[in-house]
Amino acid sequence: MAHKVTFYNAWFCPFAQRAWIGLLHKGIKFEYVEQDPYNKSPEWLAINPRGLVPAIRHNGHVVYESPICLEYTDEAWKDEGPALLPKDPYERALVRIWSDHISKKIVPAYYAVLLKRTEEERTEAKVSMEENLFKLQDAMASDGGPFFMGYQFGMVDVMLFPHFYRIQTIVKQYRAFSISDEVKFERLLKWYNAVKGLECVKQTMADEERLIAKYKRYENDTAETEVATAIRKGTALP
Amino acid sequence: MAHKVTFYNAWFCPFAQRAWIGLLHKGIKFEYVEQDPYNKSPEWLAINPRGLVPAIRHNGHVVYESPICLEYTDEAWKDEGPALLPKDPYERALVRIWSDHISKKIVPAYYAVLLKRTEEERTEAKVSMEENLFKLQDAMASDGGPFFMGYQFGMVDVMLFPHFYRIQTIVKQYRAFSISDEVKFERLLKWYNAVKGLECVKQTMADEERLIAKYKRYENDTAETEVATAIRKGTALP
Repeated sequence: MAHKVTFYNAWFCPFAQRAWIGLLHKGIKFEYVEQDPYNKSPEWLAINPRGLVPAIRHNGHVVYESPICLEYTDEAWKDEGPALLPKDPYERALVRIWSDHISKKIVPAYYAVLLKRTEEERTEAKVSMEENLFKLQDAMASDGGPFFMGYQFGMVDVMLFPHFYRIQTIVKQYRAFSISDEVKFERLLKWYNAVKGLECVKQTMADEERLIAKYKRYENDTAETEVATAIRKGTALP
Repeated sequence: MAHKVTFYNAWFCPFAQRAWIGLLHKGIKFEYVEQDPYNKSPEWLAINPRGLVPAIRHNGHVVYESPICLEYTDEAWKDEGPALLPKDPYERALVRIWSDHISKKIVPAYYAVLLKRTEEERTEAKVSMEENLFKLQDAMASDGGPFFMGYQFGMVDVMLFPHFYRIQTIVKQYRAFSISDEVKFERLLKWYNAVKGLECVKQTMADEERLIAKYKRYENDTAETEVATAIRKGTALP
């Protein structure tokens, strides 16, 4: 085997992008395999029973679920490259608490803004998304560093970035909403600019026009049903 | 301060029970504070902004969310008592993958069995609960040890036990369903008997009759609305 590490990705998937950024940040060499989560081959299902991206194959084992991929990357290569999680137990708990906040509060609101059918429901989701981004901003380090933990880029930054990028591109395009208030969201926008500029992030960023084109279905009202079907089938959320 | 660690619990809450078992398993000394998640005092909200149990207060910091409490307990007292997670990065990922399976597949099915209003929906949830318990059983160690990882009791066992105990008591009482097939679920029932017998688990087990009485509302059909309200308000699932 030329490569001991294989990374299974779908270029448009924000969850997969998290694991991708983690591997690049740590400087891990891997073979990149593009996988269509909506078209599962038997070979693919044999490797990853849930059929989801991201998945990291390493030493004959497969790890999946994006936060688990990030912690695995941090632990399996703990002596290589910069850490994704801090060492202090309470700081690690904080990273997990805010990663959980992103998964349970921000990501569902993001999908609700795109997928809900009535204006009322979409507005409710936008309010929730803003409130929960504001709470996260409030928890960000105030030591002058741009990242969640200050000067050290890490897991919370990785967990948030892919969906935040899609708020600023897809949601802006199809729902006329983005995070743009430079007073209210000064800290968060400073964070966004710093993260966007990192090499390990730039390499994973889907071209804005291509991404917007991919989600053209959000322009009309068929999206909810399509995605509801995908969720029932256990395929990845896009 | 007599105690450096304070543990906030609600005696009936399965999520809080996880953190409780973790602390006892590690042999940590703590002050126990019973907290009513449905009646939040301002003092309580000042300590824990989400107002949820479990919460662990240690060195002036508060940690919450049950899986995060378990990892915190393991890391903050890493040289005290037996570990809750293995050392190997892949085994740690496995523990997190199956903890995630419990959170995303088994726990929601458990609540659906209790809260859904139609027999059809409840039956669907029972099937899902059984299927996902079967998948978990299939992932359990086959080295002869009774626990998920074999001879070493740990995080996956802790994550599953409180809800499994409630399947065997509350769900059995109010929905005439439990895991009882000694052929199909031989491994899981062996696991259950072993975990039930541990001192750190016995100390946290609510009396069966008291627990059944607490959930008497599941006998009628008002439960869904009551709990839906609690979820909207952000109070703990019981």
